[in-house]
Amino acid sequence: MLKNPDTKYRPFITPVDLPDRRWPSRRLTAAPRWLSTDLRDGNQALANPMGSERKQRFYDMLVAIGFKEIEVAFPSASQTEFDFVRHLIDENRIPEDVTIQVLTQSRRDLIARTFEALDGARHATVHLYNATAPLFRRVVFGMDRPEIVALAVSGVTAMLDESLKRPQTDWTFQYSPETFCFTEPDFALEICERVLDVWQPTPQRPVILNLPATVEVAMPNVYADQIEWFCRNISRRDSVIVSVHPHNDRGTGVAAAEQALLAGADRIEGCLFGNGERTGNVDLVTLALNLYTQGIDPGLSFPAMREIVGTVESCIGLPVHPRHPYAGELVHTAFSGSHQDAIRKGFAAHERRNDGIWEMPYLPIDPADIGETYEAVIRVNSQSGKGGVAWVIEQDRGMRLPKRLQADFSAHVQALADGTGRELEAADIWACFESRYLPRLADRFMLVDHEERGAAGRRLFVGRVAVDGAVRSISGHGNGLISGVVAALEAAGGPSLDVVDYQEHAISRGADAQAAAYVECRTADGRAVFGVGIDPDVATASVRAVLSAANRTCA
Amino acid sequence: MLKNPDTKYRPFITPVDLPDRRWPSRRLTAAPRWLSTDLRDGNQALANPMGSERKQRFYDMLVAIGFKEIEVAFPSASQTEFDFVRHLIDENRIPEDVTIQVLTQSRRDLIARTFEALDGARHATVHLYNATAPLFRRVVFGMDRPEIVALAVSGVTAMLDESLKRPQTDWTFQYSPETFCFTEPDFALEICERVLDVWQPTPQRPVILNLPATVEVAMPNVYADQIEWFCRNISRRDSVIVSVHPHNDRGTGVAAAEQALLAGADRIEGCLFGNGERTGNVDLVTLALNLYTQGIDPGLSFPAMREIVGTVESCIGLPVHPRHPYAGELVHTAFSGSHQDAIRKGFAAHERRNDGIWEMPYLPIDPADIGETYEAVIRVNSQSGKGGVAWVIEQDRGMRLPKRLQADFSAHVQALADGTGRELEAADIWACFESRYLPRLADRFMLVDHEERGAAGRRLFVGRVAVDGAVRSISGHGNGLISGVVAALEAAGGPSLDVVDYQEHAISRGADAQAAAYVECRTADGRAVFGVGIDPDVATASVRAVLSAANRTCA
Repeated sequence: MLKNPDTKYRPFITPVDLPDRRWPSRRLTAAPRWLSTDLRDGNQALANPMGSERKQRFYDMLVAIGFKEIEVAFPSASQTEFDFVRHLIDENRIPEDVTIQVLTQSRRDLIARTFEALDGARHATVHLYNATAPLFRRVVFGMDRPEIVALAVSGVTAMLDESLKRPQTDWTFQYSPETFCFTEPDFALEICERVLDVWQPTPQRPVILNLPATVEVAMPNVYADQIEWFCRNISRRDSVIVSVHPHNDRGTGVAAAEQALLAGADRIEGCLFGNGERTGNVDLVTLALNLYTQGIDPGLSFPAMREIVGTVESCIGLPVHPRHPYAGELVHTAFSGSHQDAIRKGFAAHERRNDGIWEMPYLPIDPADIGETYEAVIRVNSQSGKGGVAWVIEQDRGMRLPKRLQADFSAHVQALADGTGRELEAADIWACFESRYLPRLADRFMLVDHEERGAAGRRLFVGRVAVDGAVRSISGHGNGLISGVVAALEAAGGPSLDVVDYQEHAISRGADAQAAAYVECRTADGRAVFGVGIDPDVATASVRAVLSAANRTCA
Repeated sequence: MLKNPDTKYRPFITPVDLPDRRWPSRRLTAAPRWLSTDLRDGNQALANPMGSERKQRFYDMLVAIGFKEIEVAFPSASQTEFDFVRHLIDENRIPEDVTIQVLTQSRRDLIARTFEALDGARHATVHLYNATAPLFRRVVFGMDRPEIVALAVSGVTAMLDESLKRPQTDWTFQYSPETFCFTEPDFALEICERVLDVWQPTPQRPVILNLPATVEVAMPNVYADQIEWFCRNISRRDSVIVSVHPHNDRGTGVAAAEQALLAGADRIEGCLFGNGERTGNVDLVTLALNLYTQGIDPGLSFPAMREIVGTVESCIGLPVHPRHPYAGELVHTAFSGSHQDAIRKGFAAHERRNDGIWEMPYLPIDPADIGETYEAVIRVNSQSGKGGVAWVIEQDRGMRLPKRLQADFSAHVQALADGTGRELEAADIWACFESRYLPRLADRFMLVDHEERGAAGRRLFVGRVAVDGAVRSISGHGNGLISGVVAALEAAGGPSLDVVDYQEHAISRGADAQAAAYVECRTADGRAVFGVGIDPDVATASVRAVLSAANRTCA
């Protein structure tokens, strides 16, 4: 790389001067019109373009998602493209409320061929483009401004002629000054005005002017200024649908589209997950869900995101990145301890509040809304803390560990994660929990059975317990079950325990219901030990919890 | 997905009211300070966090790229993290001009542990955070505003105390009101003021206030307004480095960072290729190269992008997407015919102009600047046109096909691509060229040898040519070689040809030099046929080209 890049690179454009721009103070309140160009711009960017079968599968999915405008081909460019358009029309694959769109260059023979491809369609949009930027005029075409205007005008005139030959179709016209984003604003406006002069749109029969960021060469706010300036200055604004077509060369395609909407655009062209030439077209999934998570119905629906990802990946042969907004496999996952803790509390508050409003730390969308499970929300590794560990135990086993037990347990999990250096599965964490708190063969005290007798306030616990492998009958008095067990254990040579906390809850419903009991005890020398008991009987679970704590004092 | 998402989702924030915002009219003229948090925020977001070996490899690469500030760990969170910081210091792995940074929560014991990890460092930044947003105060901490302020103040006071115990290190302090982007602006300002009151920064010893978009919940322009408002209102602005830390949940992290710079930020925290929790931190590679391609030295260098991609992928276990700006394997590639044609003309104009300025259709960066080759710039499939095909033949074989020959040839390539439905390799295209224009065993006319005699204006061509398999001597007069061959072929029963164009050029240099000759002829019935000849001898190449055209008339 150069130390002085200004000797090689210059900003492509001079921003329009718009000190009184209005877009930064506006808010989005409704969805734009969407056009999917997956089957055209997306397809032409693939090493192995989709064949007819994959195009059909992709098209069916676009219809199911809710797209009403779909650019399906560049029919004059190849026989494959032409045939796909014919197939859709001849096989009656276009729903009444869907309009297909096709692209053409500005040449009379290509335009004729394009209309031939569309013969018999109910509705269709014909999209003509020519590049207008100075670099393209000079280097690619060797044409001056009037020649470039003449090229556009002859093309859109030919479109009008062809359409008049086929009055049975409801035609929409679209013109793109390609490379708009680095064309002089006044020239982009001029060429669009000359196109409107030919087409003579009305509010009842508007045309589409599409303003591409063919290559993204400036910040989104510069693009938004260009769009606002264009919207303010184009004549017949009420007869024009202003459309944008952002690419993503600077990684800011989504922002460019959103800020262009603020600036007055009515319509966005893009692809699912940002497929398209080079860095891709703007990603329509992200744009739609950005609206959705602000409470705005995008008019597109992704109730089973995994399926859509799978279909797209198999059709285009490119992956959706694990960190892709909304759709990536890691984006609803927290590994960090503090994040996990916050999410766990967020879910608890959500249940308590019960007002349906989604306010969840670190999760801008409810994964369930797009068909994702909560399983992947929290995953545990050496970066995770007690909140994450507690979440996994709760999700996996239905056990709600008391806070200090969480801290005790997570220290063990942390050591395990540090030692293995890899992500821990739920099974790893449960095995760790079992080995720390649940009965083991090596335990000093193991419950065989027990009973409880006596009056309130002076209860007698009698249990058969294997102590160091030999079954003995032990007993102790207390004002309740727990204190009785503690006394019995101490009388049988066990540790002296002071119970400082006790909690118990059901962990499943119906016939299989189990209870989980948790005790926190203090030993004679002041150490905290934790015990856990699980049993179908709530009393037995409590007894097991105390025995568990007693066993821990020897560990 | 819900049809009425406003019953579930509300905008997270109310934008600050800043009608006189200045950032949209500003331009970037210099690079910000960069902090890589790959080894901290990036690392904690991995299913399998980097071990010491991978962390070290990543760290060495960050230093080589040119990072001067690197967040290396969260040392109080785990032993692995602590040990890595010790390793860097004890093994003297930190260059004099590099400052390492570590993260801590606001707890006195954790802060003490954090400074312990840094003991003996020359320079270090200690970064303390606590979450400040209403949702976090209410749901996660159960604290009101004064309690959250007190938490921050006690932490930053502890930092000051610890630093005074270790005067041998050059300390920098950093505070993050985590969840800044959905904290009330006045509260974020208040808590930062209280932190400054403790730290008492000066212009000579500034502190860093880092304003994270912990979760991206609004458009980049809303974030930029928040940053500008903060920069305008914070006291002691000249003693504060305003830093931003954007995430990418809405796919607009890069735009948020850039617009925050316009709004007054001095520093950006992010990761290479946008690693980090969920959708990732902002991508520092894209940000740096966005500056570079506008002629601004980013202070970071990626002269061998493939190597950096390889190292990152192997360290973090996640891929860089093929369409990732600047770094993806497809982003310097054009498949579309019109794009290919424009690029080919762009390269030709670039050579002619010879001023070093990079103005290339569809290629915002010269791939060579980041160590990429031009080989992948143009790839051919059914979407490609004559420009792309001509480029591949030129790159691969050094042959510059005349324009009408390009059109003739590309029709054959198109048919091949349509038929196979896959990308064509250079070898496929060359095989197609050979079979169409170069000598084949089935050809009617095959040259054995030839000579030329006679005076200027009246030359005699004499050749030994295999005609339908039998070698014959043929001859013809012309005013030059080409017309002599044409006459000889016609006299020998060959087609009557009218030569309408002829071009020839050298296709290699030195001893191996070859010449390529191209003829375009018209047949008696008005068809255009093309012939190509390649030979070390320029005259023989011409003869071969005419025979090639003659053979085509029979094809």
